[in-house]
Amino acid sequence: MDTSPASPMTYKDAGVDIQAGDAMVDLIRPLAVRTYDPRVIVDHFGGFGGFFSLDFPDKLLKKNYRDPILVGCSDGVGTKVLVALATGRVNTVGIDLVAMNVNDLVCSGAEPLFFLDYIGTARLDPPRKAEIIKGISYGCVQAGCALLGGETAEMPDIYRGEDFDLAGFALGVVERRRLIDGRRVEVGDTVIALASDGLHSNGYGLARRVLLDKAGMSLDDCPPELEGRTVGAELLRPTRIYAKAVRSVLGRYRVKRVVKAMAHITGGGLVGNIPRVLPAGLTVRVKRDSWSAPPIFGLIAAKGPVDDLEMLRVFNMGVGFVMIVAPSFARAIMNDLRRRGERCWVLGKVRKGGPELEWA
Amino acid sequence: MDTSPASPMTYKDAGVDIQAGDAMVDLIRPLAVRTYDPRVIVDHFGGFGGFFSLDFPDKLLKKNYRDPILVGCSDGVGTKVLVALATGRVNTVGIDLVAMNVNDLVCSGAEPLFFLDYIGTARLDPPRKAEIIKGISYGCVQAGCALLGGETAEMPDIYRGEDFDLAGFALGVVERRRLIDGRRVEVGDTVIALASDGLHSNGYGLARRVLLDKAGMSLDDCPPELEGRTVGAELLRPTRIYAKAVRSVLGRYRVKRVVKAMAHITGGGLVGNIPRVLPAGLTVRVKRDSWSAPPIFGLIAAKGPVDDLEMLRVFNMGVGFVMIVAPSFARAIMNDLRRRGERCWVLGKVRKGGPELEWA
Repeated sequence: MDTSPASPMTYKDAGVDIQAGDAMVDLIRPLAVRTYDPRVIVDHFGGFGGFFSLDFPDKLLKKNYRDPILVGCSDGVGTKVLVALATGRVNTVGIDLVAMNVNDLVCSGAEPLFFLDYIGTARLDPPRKAEIIKGISYGCVQAGCALLGGETAEMPDIYRGEDFDLAGFALGVVERRRLIDGRRVEVGDTVIALASDGLHSNGYGLARRVLLDKAGMSLDDCPPELEGRTVGAELLRPTRIYAKAVRSVLGRYRVKRVVKAMAHITGGGLVGNIPRVLPAGLTVRVKRDSWSAPPIFGLIAAKGPVDDLEMLRVFNMGVGFVMIVAPSFARAIMNDLRRRGERCWVLGKVRKGGPELEWA
Repeated sequence: MDTSPASPMTYKDAGVDIQAGDAMVDLIRPLAVRTYDPRVIVDHFGGFGGFFSLDFPDKLLKKNYRDPILVGCSDGVGTKVLVALATGRVNTVGIDLVAMNVNDLVCSGAEPLFFLDYIGTARLDPPRKAEIIKGISYGCVQAGCALLGGETAEMPDIYRGEDFDLAGFALGVVERRRLIDGRRVEVGDTVIALASDGLHSNGYGLARRVLLDKAGMSLDDCPPELEGRTVGAELLRPTRIYAKAVRSVLGRYRVKRVVKAMAHITGGGLVGNIPRVLPAGLTVRVKRDSWSAPPIFGLIAAKGPVDDLEMLRVFNMGVGFVMIVAPSFARAIMNDLRRRGERCWVLGKVRKGGPELEWA
């Protein structure tokens, strides 16, 4: 950069390249388009905002929302991006980003409609950014929502080197009388656990500190506890997206409304997230021996050491999502979930008490 | 932090404080609540996501969307946050954040419904974060949308010291047949400029480099060009929110549809943003002498030096928003805008040509 006073300065000198931005749009457009359904209004690409028709004028597709409640979520993936950067594989954190948002969204019974991303970064490197957005696009396809738009901000004075931050926004809709809010949960309801795929996107501050700093492991290490997986691969496992499996169950029991509450197990773990969806005076007695936490959690607990309660407060411990259902439908719902590829089991029962969970 | 192996590690040791997060919720709740309208479903605060009823079951409030198109926008405020940090005044960048999103939203004629924020930061400092969210809340009130939720991510390994990044997501709705997309723009249409309040939220990379680094000015300097304002105060002026003024005009001409296109003048300036909303084969002849750019732009151009074309490509140059309207209604619309407190003038006319703007 020439800083002599006679040389006119441009925005590119100052670190922002508008042409590279245009190249980027061409790279990411197909990644967005593959997530579209007929409700996305495509001829507005490049305009101010993304456009989505709530009802598509076709009987087959019409969702018949008479009293639609819009549900909005925003979330990021935390320092999991640092693991992605350290391993050089940035094409899956976008899956995590979508997962963190749509798994929240479906807790209310909402249908995910669309997603918007925000990438904060120092420099625009189109191929690398396309890798990130490939993950987001893949996640949107898995969740059944459209990648409607996004924003990439170049801020070389905030972000260092290759660092970036990822935030996302998901919008969903639910018919008012089908909104699931835990209000009808009652004593005796069955609590179903859906298995997680490792850490998902929470607790990376602690996990990285323990494994990489304190225990001095490298991302390429293959500790026996991980049964052949490297630390990097384990830490990068994408957050499981429960949206389609959950929507499938809800679709099957549309009238009966047997699903009474759902919780996405994120920061706060089971102990933080299950009570959020329970009415006052109720709690869940968790059967501790109904599952064993996957090895990554044992590894972190041992290397910290991190005590049991803290582990439960920070990590999902193998349970990524919880559904609270009428007991007589629990078996059928679990069969549905399994057919959809989910691993699930009865985690416990709803009882009087709380707000803390009970352990049995 | 005790790192001896015998001392169990906690998430707080690793830099994340869940209790402080709860204190934060108490601080920000009233800031969100003051933005609510009856369509916000309040008893879900703390659940997974924010809830907004598209139609409120009251005749007076019912918006009667028969074929609603949802419009989603996401944007950040760029390195304007660094100016806020340097001056210690972080309670206005939230206004910028809302402005960047809702000004985009209203370009399509959409009614802003709600807003969600994302703050990426190193540490959770509740009073400071409350200051940021005060700005967001104030912006939402100005825009007439609800602050439905948000996420604050603590990432001490990505953000340095007090640094933070701000991203936002706005959702709006527009009746399909009232969607404004520039399609009906024709030769002879009048282009109305709405005055900006300084730099708004674009070009800060270049502005900071020129004024602070190259010209060596400090944020406390009062150069004569700024007529008594400090550099810091000028750089921090909040982005003007045009939402209510624009919605007021649209409400008045609901049936006649005299507003044919609108553009929010952001990165890319007039030359980048006006062509985005014009049909192929049309351009705007801009009357260069219809306004003079406010002094901050002249100061940057002189201190860079930055040439005219680059200034026009990077900064709004005093025009924050543009409306393209049927010529016979231009005067009445400008009167409406002035009654709403906007400064506006005829910027030019639509002509055959393009895609570049013409200058007269």
